[in-house]
Amino acid sequence: MATFYGIGVGPGDSELMTVKAVNTLKQIDILYAPKAHNDQPSVAEKIASPYFSEELTVKRRRFPMVKDLSEKQASWRAIAEEIVADVKAGHDVGFITLGDASVYSTYSYLLDIIGDQIAVETVAGISAYSQIAAATSIPLVLDDELLEIIPATADMSLIDKAVDINDNVVLMKVATHWSEIFELLASKKLLNQAIVIVNASMANQQQFKVAELTKETKLPYFSTLILKKKYQF
Amino acid sequence: MATFYGIGVGPGDSELMTVKAVNTLKQIDILYAPKAHNDQPSVAEKIASPYFSEELTVKRRRFPMVKDLSEKQASWRAIAEEIVADVKAGHDVGFITLGDASVYSTYSYLLDIIGDQIAVETVAGISAYSQIAAATSIPLVLDDELLEIIPATADMSLIDKAVDINDNVVLMKVATHWSEIFELLASKKLLNQAIVIVNASMANQQQFKVAELTKETKLPYFSTLILKKKYQF
Repeated sequence: MATFYGIGVGPGDSELMTVKAVNTLKQIDILYAPKAHNDQPSVAEKIASPYFSEELTVKRRRFPMVKDLSEKQASWRAIAEEIVADVKAGHDVGFITLGDASVYSTYSYLLDIIGDQIAVETVAGISAYSQIAAATSIPLVLDDELLEIIPATADMSLIDKAVDINDNVVLMKVATHWSEIFELLASKKLLNQAIVIVNASMANQQQFKVAELTKETKLPYFSTLILKKKYQF
Repeated sequence: MATFYGIGVGPGDSELMTVKAVNTLKQIDILYAPKAHNDQPSVAEKIASPYFSEELTVKRRRFPMVKDLSEKQASWRAIAEEIVADVKAGHDVGFITLGDASVYSTYSYLLDIIGDQIAVETVAGISAYSQIAAATSIPLVLDDELLEIIPATADMSLIDKAVDINDNVVLMKVATHWSEIFELLASKKLLNQAIVIVNASMANQQQFKVAELTKETKLPYFSTLILKKKYQF
């Protein structure tokens, strides 16, 4: 039966794709992929491209990164309609997404629109935070501990509560809210229990102890903070 | 340089291993693997074995599943010493672990003991909760939402607080604390926002709406609950 596959391609290194993701890519007829701003292949497409079959048709589509939700939804709806039409015409169709297909992924919005119109299968991928833990050989969570994943764009009062109840907190996208995050950790005397990983799994990966930064530090966009209360970094 | 590799083999299907995990397995000389209770290969070894090279030496070791921490630590220490000796003798050595090597993994304890005695590299794997989301095509987390991972063996007051502040909660090992978890969700009127996945990614996978269960339901050991407050299951 013709199927739509949502494929997580992992955080950056083509080797971090699963065997299933590779086999799925080799088997599909049509691949939908996000288009980068300059009309170039997206990061996800660059990761997946070593595994493309010669017969694969790649359809690059723009997913607008704008604040206007209705503009985004109109784009998603149009792309979802194309996908449904391709699958109903008998093609196996894929969509690639960075990291894990179920974690902060555009694929989830497509899935929501597509519903049960066609057969769907999701192929899990390595998430950015999983690779950050691996790249630094720091355990994310142990025993009966809790693990929280939060984007720093969330409400600061929620972040405050989450920091209080969790042993382990992954704070994503910390660059844009760095001074508030830094002050929050300082006020809770947790600076020594946190590190920031910049450009994880890329050639220019860096790691900083938060205690050695200040609230004025300018961090690159791809910066993730890991707080481990039972650790001393 | 001879290196110790901690390799996450994913949740069950050999295809859910990463290409990097496969390539690492093919390249190492010695593999340490947990031994199952009946002296048979463990689940992790069964998952990884299709990729073993003919020259690979597999050293099965028992990791006792007992409450006595000092007994466990003695076992881990002895195995860590063997690993360090093998690497110092010039061998590339691997250790396989179910799911993601950084998430609730015995590998983390070995790593803690080994410290910086030898070169170490961690290879990320698909976690059980990531595969549960994929198998059900349910997004784990979107937008500015929070995601919490908790074992049901954690303190119930922490679970209560975590349920209050998170949009998305993955509750692992719910079978052993089912009646308390069920009552907690019932008291917060969240029964319709939760499902239980049994034996995820195995042949006998099942999915139940929590609203259709009772607090007396007997669930199998491999049961995971997903709560999504913005969903209706």
